[in-house]
Amino acid sequence: MSSSFRIHRARLETLVDGVFAIAMTILVLEVKVPELTDRHSTEDLLHALLHHGYVIGAYAFSFAMLGLFWVWHHRLAEQVREIDLPLLVCALTFLALISFFPFASALLGRYTTNLAALLVYVPVIGLILLTQTLFFWLAMRRNLVVAEHCSPAKALATHRRNLIGLAIFSFACTPTLMRLNAYAPLAGVALGALLLWWAKRRVPAASAKSRT
Amino acid sequence: MSSSFRIHRARLETLVDGVFAIAMTILVLEVKVPELTDRHSTEDLLHALLHHGYVIGAYAFSFAMLGLFWVWHHRLAEQVREIDLPLLVCALTFLALISFFPFASALLGRYTTNLAALLVYVPVIGLILLTQTLFFWLAMRRNLVVAEHCSPAKALATHRRNLIGLAIFSFACTPTLMRLNAYAPLAGVALGALLLWWAKRRVPAASAKSRT
Amino acid sequence: MSSSFRIHRARLETLVDGVFAIAMTILVLEVKVPELTDRHSTEDLLHALLHHGYVIGAYAFSFAMLGLFWVWHHRLAEQVREIDLPLLVCALTFLALISFFPFASALLGRYTTNLAALLVYVPVIGLILLTQTLFFWLAMRRNLVVAEHCSPAKALATHRRNLIGLAIFSFACTPTLMRLNAYAPLAGVALGALLLWWAKRRVPAASAKSRT
Amino acid sequence: MSSSFRIHRARLETLVDGVFAIAMTILVLEVKVPELTDRHSTEDLLHALLHHGYVIGAYAFSFAMLGLFWVWHHRLAEQVREIDLPLLVCALTFLALISFFPFASALLGRYTTNLAALLVYVPVIGLILLTQTLFFWLAMRRNLVVAEHCSPAKALATHRRNLIGLAIFSFACTPTLMRLNAYAPLAGVALGALLLWWAKRRVPAASAKSRT
Repeated sequence: MSSSFRIHRARLETLVDGVFAIAMTILVLEVKVPELTDRHSTEDLLHALLHHGYVIGAYAFSFAMLGLFWVWHHRLAEQVREIDLPLLVCALTFLALISFFPFASALLGRYTTNLAALLVYVPVIGLILLTQTLFFWLAMRRNLVVAEHCSPAKALATHRRNLIGLAIFSFACTPTLMRLNAYAPLAGVALGALLLWWAKRRVPAASAKSRT
Repeated sequence: MSSSFRIHRARLETLVDGVFAIAMTILVLEVKVPELTDRHSTEDLLHALLHHGYVIGAYAFSFAMLGLFWVWHHRLAEQVREIDLPLLVCALTFLALISFFPFASALLGRYTTNLAALLVYVPVIGLILLTQTLFFWLAMRRNLVVAEHCSPAKALATHRRNLIGLAIFSFACTPTLMRLNAYAPLAGVALGALLLWWAKRRVPAASAKSRT
Repeated sequence: MSSSFRIHRARLETLVDGVFAIAMTILVLEVKVPELTDRHSTEDLLHALLHHGYVIGAYAFSFAMLGLFWVWHHRLAEQVREIDLPLLVCALTFLALISFFPFASALLGRYTTNLAALLVYVPVIGLILLTQTLFFWLAMRRNLVVAEHCSPAKALATHRRNLIGLAIFSFACTPTLMRLNAYAPLAGVALGALLLWWAKRRVPAASAKSRT
Repeated sequence: MSSSFRIHRARLETLVDGVFAIAMTILVLEVKVPELTDRHSTEDLLHALLHHGYVIGAYAFSFAMLGLFWVWHHRLAEQVREIDLPLLVCALTFLALISFFPFASALLGRYTTNLAALLVYVPVIGLILLTQTLFFWLAMRRNLVVAEHCSPAKALATHRRNLIGLAIFSFACTPTLMRLNAYAPLAGVALGALLLWWAKRRVPAASAKSRT
């Protein structure tokens, strides 16, 4: 695959829409039809369904998260002219995490009160946010952002919003993650990398400003 | 996300088509291949399949419902120019309910004679109708209806048809819902909200008429 | 829904592609990973997989059938200008049967030697062929065939090929179906209806010839 | 189906995207939510998830493979003008293998240390590579490659890269396959066929060079 590797954005978007549509619908497969001893008892069935409350709540929350990711991805992707190899790898990693999301959601629905379920669910969301931010940052770096729709200053503002979202998420989740020592250094490394990016980002921001 | 938030209608429609295609196909997953003690007995297998009668009936009915919702959604959506944030939230809620529909259908197929299954199935349909009506009403309110294809008077006629459909559904289901007291006040609130909309709707209708 | 009811062909085709893609992929869900007592025994696993031979054979055959239906449907649909209500009902019935197909295929894979499995599989294929033929016949009748791409004579030739395919299928399956008496009158009625269509079809054929 | 059989590339690509999106998402269905005796024990759940390590590893690897195949297919398909019957059969066989891939991946995830699982997984990948190579070779042979985008010399270079990829894969897998005698002659036949193609390929290559 030479340096002229390109793939049409429309092709990637069809795949993204397909994966999101299936991940959204597969979420509900975890909500199982309960087994009853007395098939005609209304009370038994209602009672069994109320026990499904956690699962249905996890379904609604996860669906909302997927909806949010879908909107966010398309708002970023529509500013990108073409998909080259690093962007493609980043987008496919994003899709792999989206496909993995129904499993994390099912785990959280079944074991809502169990910390370990959160320790899968929260990092998956964190990685999804990270790949999204990385996706747009790579597009900016590689001059693949559509200039007419999106000026360099506007692109930087978008990137800054992505980073702020990621930072808010990281801080919000720190208490949860702190409860397992293994995640604390990981969060530290991630934060350091973010700060590094932030610093580096100021240079093209300055040059963009001087250009305008 | 600023006030200039917009998403292309074509993007939403691809997601809608994907979710509908999967929900339609997932319906059939509930029709399980029966387990037989004698693998070669034609009578046993036919007998087991006839026992699946309710499940297959629920499958056919639910497929028809999904087909109806799909047609209805696209007939509404093709009159909308752009999707802004409130419309998007409304459309994603609609999709969450569509994804949830196979579960409700599976519940009804397994426990056809159980009132509690209807108490899940019927409100899900009601909410789907409600989000559809809300979707078009929001589009009208926010001036996102395509003017060339659809004059204000025509848009109002569409909205009135939506409301009438919702009202017929509500009245038809009242006897079922009445059997559980918890749903009676809910239906009352919904009806009151509808009447309020109806009253408010007359003002833009009048202004639309005076404009024509 | 007034007489001016129309839906864009592109919209239907996206749904059709989605349903086909999922039905094709769901076929394989019936091929279950075997359970072994000794996890490291190559012979045990190979033996268990060979027992899956029938299921994998049914998978390959059903996939080929779905591929055939997909090609056939698009070759018919691309000659249709617009989709009105009767065509839509016909197309959605077709999709319901396609969604149902993985169940029939799973049944045949599990109970290959059982006549009852064929009594589900064969009629489903027959109904799929019937809805396809009906779809194109309705399009011809309602003047929705694209005139530039497809002259009336060519459209009739297509319809005749559809009918011949349906007839060959009916005759080929008669021996199977004959073994259950219940299907014999059904086949008779279907054949009668076909002959009636054939006769009626000659009139527009004649008028089409005189027009050319 | 006459010699003028053609299908639009866009139609095939929608189906391909759909099948890939579903196959990617279905991969994760094999990662099952573990059953715990103590629902609130973090250690138990983490331990159970670590036992899923192989399955999650197989998921990540298989997702990467599917991503690779998807990119490769679209890079080949975008050079093809139209899809005629042999190309279509080849593409549908490719899709059947892609749909079958989640089963092979599930088998490998469950029985990672079992040779028989590799004996399913590796040949499926091999056949996918083979159908891809065949797809482009058929397109070249039948003059369906877009001339403007892709000169004959460039098309040949693509085909050569496909063949080299196939050859590397064959040699890399030989040690695995050698352990079962049944696969050795099969690999021999495949290699012979490749060499035959290679030889034949030189003739149009020479004519292409003389033309340039």
